[in-house]
This record gives sequence, C-alpha cells and structure tokens, in this order.
Amino acid sequence: MASDQPLPPGSTIGILGGGQLGRMLALAAARLGFKTHIYCPDAQSPAFEVTPNRTVAAYDDEQALAVFASHVDVVTYEFENVPARTAKFLAELKPLRPGANALAISQDRLAEKAFLTVNRIAVAPFAAVPDHDRLDEALAEIGTPAVLKTTRMGYDGKGQRIVRNDVDAGVAFELLSPKPLVLEGFIEFDKEISVVVARNTRGEIAAFDPAENVHRDHILKTSTVPADIGKKTAREARDIAEKIVTALDYVGVLGVEFFVLPSGRLLVNEIAPRVHNSGHWTEAVCITDQFEQHIRAIAGWPLGDPARMADVVMENLIGDEIGAIPANLAPSIQPHVYGKSESRAGRKMGHINRIGAKSRTK
Amino acid sequence: MASDQPLPPGSTIGILGGGQLGRMLALAAARLGFKTHIYCPDAQSPAFEVTPNRTVAAYDDEQALAVFASHVDVVTYEFENVPARTAKFLAELKPLRPGANALAISQDRLAEKAFLTVNRIAVAPFAAVPDHDRLDEALAEIGTPAVLKTTRMGYDGKGQRIVRNDVDAGVAFELLSPKPLVLEGFIEFDKEISVVVARNTRGEIAAFDPAENVHRDHILKTSTVPADIGKKTAREARDIAEKIVTALDYVGVLGVEFFVLPSGRLLVNEIAPRVHNSGHWTEAVCITDQFEQHIRAIAGWPLGDPARMADVVMENLIGDEIGAIPANLAPSIQPHVYGKSESRAGRKMGHINRIGAKSRTK
Repeated sequence: MASDQPLPPGSTIGILGGGQLGRMLALAAARLGFKTHIYCPDAQSPAFEVTPNRTVAAYDDEQALAVFASHVDVVTYEFENVPARTAKFLAELKPLRPGANALAISQDRLAEKAFLTVNRIAVAPFAAVPDHDRLDEALAEIGTPAVLKTTRMGYDGKGQRIVRNDVDAGVAFELLSPKPLVLEGFIEFDKEISVVVARNTRGEIAAFDPAENVHRDHILKTSTVPADIGKKTAREARDIAEKIVTALDYVGVLGVEFFVLPSGRLLVNEIAPRVHNSGHWTEAVCITDQFEQHIRAIAGWPLGDPARMADVVMENLIGDEIGAIPANLAPSIQPHVYGKSESRAGRKMGHINRIGAKSRTK
Repeated sequence: MASDQPLPPGSTIGILGGGQLGRMLALAAARLGFKTHIYCPDAQSPAFEVTPNRTVAAYDDEQALAVFASHVDVVTYEFENVPARTAKFLAELKPLRPGANALAISQDRLAEKAFLTVNRIAVAPFAAVPDHDRLDEALAEIGTPAVLKTTRMGYDGKGQRIVRNDVDAGVAFELLSPKPLVLEGFIEFDKEISVVVARNTRGEIAAFDPAENVHRDHILKTSTVPADIGKKTAREARDIAEKIVTALDYVGVLGVEFFVLPSGRLLVNEIAPRVHNSGHWTEAVCITDQFEQHIRAIAGWPLGDPARMADVVMENLIGDEIGAIPANLAPSIQPHVYGKSESRAGRKMGHINRIGAKSRTK
C-alpha cells in the first residue's frame, strides 16, 4: 500500500509484544475487521489467545522478523523497549508506526528530556550522570532531595532510587551503575495526571480527557476521570500532549504523564509511545477507546471521537487481587481480565472500570 | 465444575458457529479472561480469526464434537438451528447454555407460538398447515392477507410468502411445501421493536432498552434507541421478555421481536436464543453489552448493568455497503467489521453505531 492510503479491512496488523496491551490492541483491530499477527519471544503470552497468527522468536532474530514482516501490512508495538536494530530492520520492510524516532526518544530518559526541553515543554530539573565523576557536579546543580535513575529500561519504579543526601547518592550510584544515569530534581507534586493522545497518518489529532493517577508501590493503581483539576490545567495538559505528537510527526496513540505542582504548573514526567495503562478507562466510556484509536491512527483511518459518556474510575488488579473476579463484580463494573496463566506479586493481571453512568429508569 | 459455581477466568468457552455473532462473543469472552474454541464446518469462518482454537467439522460429526467437548468447559452457540442431536450429544458431555429446550422451541415456529400462547403471551393468529388438506381450513380460520411460512429454518425473509387470496395460497403452498408450514395472520403493525434480555445460572435477569427496528428486503437495516414508544409499552415489552426467559429457565442472552399495533398492543413475532442483531447497539453505549452479558450469564457470573449512556442508531452494512469503511467514518461512528473474506448481496458484512453522546467541551 502507499503509505498515505488507508489500510483496508482484511489487512494484517503486526504487533510486537504479547502482553495485555498487545492483546487489547488485537481485540480492537478485530472489531475493525483487521487480522492480527503477534510477535513475542514468550510462548505463554496472553495476546496469543486472541489470534491464530503468532511468531514466537527473539526480537533480534532477523530471519523470524523478515518472515513476520512478510505476513503483515503495518507493524506496531505494545512497549517502548523494542531494540533499535529491530525497529530499523522492520521499518525497511513495512511501515513501522509509531516510527523509530519515537522509540529512540522514549527509550532514553535523557533524550526524552532533551527533546521536551528543546520544544519548550517543562520537565523536572535534570542532569546527566554518565559516570561517577559527574555525580557531585549533578548533585550541586540539582540539589537534594533528588532521584537517580537509569536512562534506559526503567518502568514501574524499577531502575531508580531516591537521593536525600550525598551518602544516599553514593549508595544509589553503586546500585544503579554501570548503566548511564540521570539525576532528577524530586518534585513535590500535588497530583499526577496523564493525557492519552492520538495522531494519524494525515496529521489529525485527538486527545482524551486527562486522568488523575494514583500509584501504589510505584505501580499505577487507579485512574480517575474527570481529574480534579481546573479547566485551564486540563486544557494545558491536552495542548502539551498535542504539541508532543506534532513535534514527533507521530502516528498512533501516545501517553504523556504529568506532575501537577501546587501552583497548578505542569511538568512532563515521561512519555510512552503506545497505548497507556492510564487510558484503559476509555474502553468503558468513550465513543472511541484508545485501542481502537491507535489502530485507526496506524491504519491511516480517520480518528474517532474521544468524547466521554460517563465518569469512571479505572483500578488495576495486581497479583492476587484478580481473585476478586468474578466474585465481587458489582453490576456497574466493567472488568477486563488479561488471561495471564500465572498470578505473581506486582504483576498486572487485569483491571476494572467503575462506571458512574446515570441509571436506567425502568 | 459444579454447575452452580462461576466459571473462573482461564476456562474455555466452546462456541458453535463461526459467523459474526460467534466472533463478537469470542471477543467479549477474551475481555473477561476466557479462552474460546470455535466449532464451525466452514474453514473460512470469520470467528476463526480471533482465537487459536478451532474445529472445522460438520455438526453431526460426533467424533469431532466429542473432542471439542473435551477441550471446553461450557458450550454455547451463535445460531438457533443447531441440530437437536448435536445439542443432545454435547449436553451430555458439558453444560450447554442456553439449554436444548430453548433450541427446540425456537427452531420451530409452531412450537414457539404454542409455548408463547401457553404462557399467555400474545402472538399473531396462526394455524398449522401440515399438508395441503389443511390449507383451506387454515385460510378460513385466519383469513387474508396472511403469511405462509415454513415452520423451520426461516430467516431474513427466507421460507415465507405473503398470501392475499386463495390463488396466492395455492402458489405459496407449492413453493414452500413439502416442509411443514404455518399460516399466520398478516399484522398491520405500527412499528417493530425488540428487547434483548439476559438470565444467568442463578436466575438473575437484566433487559436492555427496547430498540426500534427497520427492515429492508426482509433484513434488519437499523435499530434505534430509544424506540419511539411510550414508557408503558417499553415496560410491557421488557416484562414479556423477562417472562419468556423465566418460563424457559433460560441461561444466556435472548432476543424477542415484537410488533407494536396501532393500539399500542404488543405481539411477539419471534424469539432467538442467542445474541441478537438488534442488540449490536449495546456494544457502543451500554455499561455491559449483550456479548459480555451472554458470556457472564453462561459462565455463572453476576450479570452486568444494561444501562445505556447515550442515544444510538445501529445500521447494518449489507453487501457492498461495507465499502463505506473507512472512507465515510464520521468521528462519532463506532464501526464493527466482521472480517468476511467475500462481500455478497444480502450478506451482513458489518455494522456501525452512530452515537449521539454529548460532545466533550474542550
């Protein structure tokens, strides 16, 4: 297909990654009449249960990647840590959406912060710590408390340590090095919010309402919509998200996490070039949800309306919490269970959406 | 499992029939964490694209049915013409939901009308026409205009002829016989509505709002919600639907089609022991849609809330009309494309839901 033509129903969407996000993308793609092909090294991947087309192979297996590419019409992914070589290899064979630049930037905290700063988008103060020599310099610049983080492969609180003084800093450095690190100012935020935004091949943009997020043990626990923020803040968050996808010439859905300062000022915490956990509420109450929106965007279809029909609270079910289903299902709860074979502590097993719709008058 | 225990996520739901209804049931089951296994004689079935587990075999292949039963925890179906022997064979191996009695009654127009009449539910006047000798008697009883129908295997207007006089009746009889027939009074209805209702293993019942249906060439074209009927009629339609599932000791989702007479009186036209085309709107705007509701019901889970969050019009895309996707997708349209490989005249290829939600204030 020419890259500016919409992908017709019946085409095949290739998805790198077989976790819950890949699974939910595949379900949305099916509703639009697309076939899906999941590529994942783990043969037990939950996404393998929702399509007959799979490849079980490593992400650096170029033979398997080439065969995979020959079976699909467009390639997307459910996680930002797709190796750069894999992305480059696939992008030469089929359209890769979102593009390799979004991966390169979001894989590296320093590159991400540099990108945001260049685009005049506010982030927490930061300083590169490529080696121990630069640690003191960074501490002097940023001050304490601060957070020392690996620049790559961090998620759910992994790869970071709080630094309250110079001793902490030394310990943290030993624990996290020899990876390249970044020291970030510790932000005394009022709340955390996020915006999920989509942009399609024609440059159309649509942002969902901001969600207010609460973390527990560094893992997202709830997303509440509407967020308890003013209209101006909500508008500004959406504007920043739209600015980011425009600057990246982005295609697909992207998540932007913000700190809201007591002053109401917004700092971008991080961006994720994929459907986002804090956007799972959209499936329950939006005209178009984030999964369908991502597929529409990468297929070159017109974007759908992100309007929300009801208030909602999304709650992640982590580890054994999944046991609440089906026993504790209130009628107004829409559950989503990921079909993972094994429940482990800290593992996201499913989520529920508590929908605050008007009750039907009987 | 004991039949009164809820089926846990990770269990496998067996579905007879691989069309769009089976496909949409499988997608809903996946959201609840279930695996699905589709059984269908047609290797090109669209439902085969949304699960890795399939059986391609005839419905009377008892060896294949036995293997299928051994792989699943509960059996359901997407169409009412499952052969009685197949239903009986499977029901001895695994729970069959809805049960064989619902199939037996809904497969035969005479049995269905007798069941409804016994339960004091109004239907159009009817008379059995088992052979030509009884045709005159039936005409004398019912009068003209009337509709002569086969008692079995009729759908989308197939297997029926309008009879305006005795000559018509003779011609219609020759065209439709030697199948057993039924003569029904021609109803001058004001509109057609339907109610989709669910009942679970514990006897909980939940009905969706009535939809107002418009047919074109005997095929459902649109379902509009809310229906343009009074509250009393809406309440009565829901009450009748609830009475039917109770009388059948039914488990699953069932569709009830009604004629609304100019007086406001309701006659039941027919019932279908499955998710229903006139319930496709629920996927776009209800807290729990008909597909999830069916899976919850047959899995012994609590039913979800059928409340509606917005007004909606569902429109079937028949034959080449599917070409409107994605070109003519307005943002407030939620499309569903069935993934059928070939578009034929009269074939249901997909549907769209036009959602009349309040727009987001930006």
